[in-house]
Amino acid sequence: MQVFETIGAFRAARTAYPTLGFVPTMGFLHEGHLGLVRRAKAENGAVAVSIFVNPTQFGPNEDYASYPRDPERDLALLKEAGADLAFLPTPDMLYPPGSVTRIEVGGVAEELEGQSRPGHFSGVATVVTKLFNIVQPQRAYFGQKDAQQCAVVRRFVADLDIPVEIVVCDIAREADGLARSSRNVRLTAENRQKAPALFRALQEATRLFRNGERDVDVLENAMRAVLTEAGLPDIDYATVVNADTFRREQPCSDNALALLAVRAGEVRLIDNMPL
Amino acid sequence: MQVFETIGAFRAARTAYPTLGFVPTMGFLHEGHLGLVRRAKAENGAVAVSIFVNPTQFGPNEDYASYPRDPERDLALLKEAGADLAFLPTPDMLYPPGSVTRIEVGGVAEELEGQSRPGHFSGVATVVTKLFNIVQPQRAYFGQKDAQQCAVVRRFVADLDIPVEIVVCDIAREADGLARSSRNVRLTAENRQKAPALFRALQEATRLFRNGERDVDVLENAMRAVLTEAGLPDIDYATVVNADTFRREQPCSDNALALLAVRAGEVRLIDNMPL
Repeated sequence: MQVFETIGAFRAARTAYPTLGFVPTMGFLHEGHLGLVRRAKAENGAVAVSIFVNPTQFGPNEDYASYPRDPERDLALLKEAGADLAFLPTPDMLYPPGSVTRIEVGGVAEELEGQSRPGHFSGVATVVTKLFNIVQPQRAYFGQKDAQQCAVVRRFVADLDIPVEIVVCDIAREADGLARSSRNVRLTAENRQKAPALFRALQEATRLFRNGERDVDVLENAMRAVLTEAGLPDIDYATVVNADTFRREQPCSDNALALLAVRAGEVRLIDNMPL
Repeated sequence: MQVFETIGAFRAARTAYPTLGFVPTMGFLHEGHLGLVRRAKAENGAVAVSIFVNPTQFGPNEDYASYPRDPERDLALLKEAGADLAFLPTPDMLYPPGSVTRIEVGGVAEELEGQSRPGHFSGVATVVTKLFNIVQPQRAYFGQKDAQQCAVVRRFVADLDIPVEIVVCDIAREADGLARSSRNVRLTAENRQKAPALFRALQEATRLFRNGERDVDVLENAMRAVLTEAGLPDIDYATVVNADTFRREQPCSDNALALLAVRAGEVRLIDNMPL
């Protein structure tokens, strides 16, 4: 595996690969990321992975500074997973003085996370576009855990005619159901025990939906009850939306997605499940 | 020369060309455009030209509907100039229902035209990015007549790491100095006679600058006097800016650019000259 820290060096090495899969990450890799890397390797012959904690997708009161980082461990895991190229730029390289361009996405980007985290998806869209232009992959791999991010990426890739195929992979979970996330390491022991309640709440919504329930209020209240009972009452949102538009519909459509964002101490957890 | 009306057909044909120069245009081609095509051909071996009057870069009270169009004549001229691929998409193809992504450029895009034409440069940046992603050229050619547009394109291409080299070509002028523009055909006979005053105003600013004048008020007033005396008093701006930032500096720097935007009846004329 070759490791690059500058845009120019990466671009020069990239020319050796006729087709390339790409996995953009913020590092502190877990099984979810590694599954993306292995699939990208299988489907493309060669894989590039970026590790970059992107400052422009964090709000001023969010966890940019405390986001977990361990590039040495990440590189060892990537080598083992079969990555060919690792790209670790610095914020100064991607945002040199004088940078003034942002990509703004409407529609799906304006719901839920778009309201909880103003500017977040603009930061995501801008950095992903930049990385696509540097890496120039045929396919890029994203995890369904960030369901709305996946929808936003598909949206701007289509809108800007970016020649990259977007592949979305299932959520990797711990044995107790907690969705794998780099932020899980920051949970206290107590909150780590409570955290699987997100998965249970989503399962409860799924059970009700499969029994014919289409009243969004009922589905939302059922999820809230599970979370509150488990000691996680600080709920950012617990809702059911149309999986294409991320808009709440009452009654919910058959194409429904349950979504949660919950604060557990310092950590904001998200999870989702198609109903 | 092959002519394409859909994105898919263009993309399929594009793969036959290892390197490609690109000239994005709004059609109704003149000698300025054809000079770009010939230079792109000489420097790249093959050239693609797009003809697309982009609705998103026109304001609600601007001349989108009346912008001159003549695709048959354009195609004949392009063939003669040596173009290999012509791409003529429709607005529906580039902006299908549900499109919600825009590229917003700050800094240089916020001055002059950015103030006279709100949303204009966002429309330009978005369509040029889309065309670059479809055409995937190595180099793209723009005319210096749209000096600020050239600066905006260079800015977002750098900011988004778009792998396209931007080449800016000199202004093509009529024998009497009027900058070639598709809009010139819409000038009345009377205004066509007055229009070379823009060139003369810029020449006067150049003469003063070369004699050591650095007071921007003096340079601006001299240009205004030439325009008003010629019967073109409806001046949107007549100014001298820093050629990198497009900001007015008093006194002006050595890296100065004189810029004009003047209304002659229904037609808004622009022109510029490095001092």
